[in-house]
Amino acid sequence: MTKPFAFILNATDGAARLGELQTPHGAVRTPAFMPVGTAGTVKAMFTDHVRAAGTDILLGNTYHLMLRPGAERVARLGGLHKFMNWDEPILTDSGGFQVMSLAKLRTMSEAGVVFQSHIDGSRHEMSPERSIEIQSLLGSDIQMQLDECVALPASRDETERAMELSLRWAERSRVAFKRLAGPGQAMFGIVQGGTELDLRVRSAEALTAMDCEGYSIGGLAVGEPQAIMLEMIGATVPRLPAAKPRYLMGVGTPQDILLAVERGIDMFDCVMPTRAGRHGLAYTWDGKLNMKNAVHADDLRPLDAASSAPPARDYSRAYLHHLVRSGEYLAGMLLTWNNVAFYQDLMSGIRAAIELRRFQEFKAETLARFERSDQD
Amino acid sequence: MTKPFAFILNATDGAARLGELQTPHGAVRTPAFMPVGTAGTVKAMFTDHVRAAGTDILLGNTYHLMLRPGAERVARLGGLHKFMNWDEPILTDSGGFQVMSLAKLRTMSEAGVVFQSHIDGSRHEMSPERSIEIQSLLGSDIQMQLDECVALPASRDETERAMELSLRWAERSRVAFKRLAGPGQAMFGIVQGGTELDLRVRSAEALTAMDCEGYSIGGLAVGEPQAIMLEMIGATVPRLPAAKPRYLMGVGTPQDILLAVERGIDMFDCVMPTRAGRHGLAYTWDGKLNMKNAVHADDLRPLDAASSAPPARDYSRAYLHHLVRSGEYLAGMLLTWNNVAFYQDLMSGIRAAIELRRFQEFKAETLARFERSDQD
Repeated sequence: MTKPFAFILNATDGAARLGELQTPHGAVRTPAFMPVGTAGTVKAMFTDHVRAAGTDILLGNTYHLMLRPGAERVARLGGLHKFMNWDEPILTDSGGFQVMSLAKLRTMSEAGVVFQSHIDGSRHEMSPERSIEIQSLLGSDIQMQLDECVALPASRDETERAMELSLRWAERSRVAFKRLAGPGQAMFGIVQGGTELDLRVRSAEALTAMDCEGYSIGGLAVGEPQAIMLEMIGATVPRLPAAKPRYLMGVGTPQDILLAVERGIDMFDCVMPTRAGRHGLAYTWDGKLNMKNAVHADDLRPLDAASSAPPARDYSRAYLHHLVRSGEYLAGMLLTWNNVAFYQDLMSGIRAAIELRRFQEFKAETLARFERSDQD
Repeated sequence: MTKPFAFILNATDGAARLGELQTPHGAVRTPAFMPVGTAGTVKAMFTDHVRAAGTDILLGNTYHLMLRPGAERVARLGGLHKFMNWDEPILTDSGGFQVMSLAKLRTMSEAGVVFQSHIDGSRHEMSPERSIEIQSLLGSDIQMQLDECVALPASRDETERAMELSLRWAERSRVAFKRLAGPGQAMFGIVQGGTELDLRVRSAEALTAMDCEGYSIGGLAVGEPQAIMLEMIGATVPRLPAAKPRYLMGVGTPQDILLAVERGIDMFDCVMPTRAGRHGLAYTWDGKLNMKNAVHADDLRPLDAASSAPPARDYSRAYLHHLVRSGEYLAGMLLTWNNVAFYQDLMSGIRAAIELRRFQEFKAETLARFERSDQD
């Protein structure tokens, strides 16, 4: 019998939290970083390397999967886990963010969004109910409500309208989820409100009343200054129930993650490590390296001799430079793997530091190390 | 102490031969298929998967590596094996074929070829001596003489001129090789002569007199009918010393390989399995599948449930179809791996059949299975 979804808090250090999610596909150690598996694959990685790098949970994109290969098809094929050969937890987004950023000819209404596919121009409808239905067809362990994320900067009126709409969509999502959810699955509500502190608070409180399994903070890391993002997180987290997991959507840099964990965030997702890997960038404890740079052409050192990750340990920087310059598949394969492993090593370091009640020292040391290398 | 290069003949079945090459980086079971690692990487594959698929030896391209990252640089970085993280045997070609097919503004003379890089237009010289020098800098276990491979169709005069030039270049390559070769390294001469039987014979006999460690048959599989290719092989092989390995360059399809093994060929290389993998094609025992085809969209079957290769066994055809349609890295990664594993399984089947003196049956069964599927 599948256990119910649960969040177990094992330790705290200031506002930083060490915990564990229990899902139908296993446990997730938090703070957790979710690599993005947009179209049923973490781009340029085999799932066994994703797992071995320390990944407990992936993010799948509802928008991409509903268009290709289609949610009903994935369901017929046994669900997203089986489809992509990943028998660990999956969180899916609602599709709303990508509809707004990728789809064509969007028409918003109280009911939902009508849009055209960016792939073939086909017409689709997305409502709170359909989003949850798609996520149920995919079989994701953690599902997101449909929300409206306004582009920043936005007027207060526009921000408030979108936040209120998102709350009504949360209610409808919740009803659909309770009807469709499988055993142990979870649905998270999404706090909106742009950069308006009082709207963020109102959104958080209204969602808390809906008793979701967890809460996301959306609409941040979309171009606003880091200080504003941190202010919004700081104002929102205390209004969310302490016993529920908190997920900061689309974040972010290693620095962002450290500062958000410090403010009580438990979960993250971001395309940075994977996208950077396909663009010749390598994350290391001494900062981000552009492997295309000629400075690496004769460098026999690996990215990180102390790493347990093969791409960081078994190949010279000179070789990685050569692969990037030559436009080889293996460049994207090795650098993506390195970057996902780096992010998971960072999360592992964060979790160990919280457990030892030395998160502040770990944060300061790590930020200082990144900063020193940025000045090189 | 490194053992000398050796070829040990373990069994024969008709003209088909089961053997083993001994090289400074280990043994090579023959008949052997060498995946092509053009620019220091078997495109879209990790070397540990190349190895686990049953690959004993890779081919590296002198032309590509001399241009980028440069032979002297590879030598400074510890040689090609270390550079690309492959501690098994490597054969390098002479660079001549790619100079003729890729480089710009070529000027041929008795001395060699002057050409411009297809990458950046830089000017380079390639002589028999420089080709061997580059291959020594790369540190390859088996090196090829520089030859001139004329495009087919060619006049008899042109074919004869190029064959005679290739023989003089073989002599010069041999002198350079004896001066530069490391312990246990080998140099193969290359039989030319187009589709002229008597020229092929003359080339083979002249090269045999040079006592190379092995012999290649070049200038075939460049567009001529298969029957002509087989006729040339049939005429050439008996003129080569039985105690030396025979390498048919640039071949080929699974069918070509079976028919060439039947005629006494020990080694092959071809870009087919790797290139096909990046273009959505999957080799299977039931023929080549175009995974882009909509017929696969709902097919839950793996490519080959009985395979020991993860890409053939652990993913549905529907998923592979989705990856190909979506242009995902993972499509090329999984299909290339599948195809290299298929080719190595074919070679393994060939070797087992020769050992059991049932090569004819194996050949007939395998060809019939391919043919049946081609009619589907």
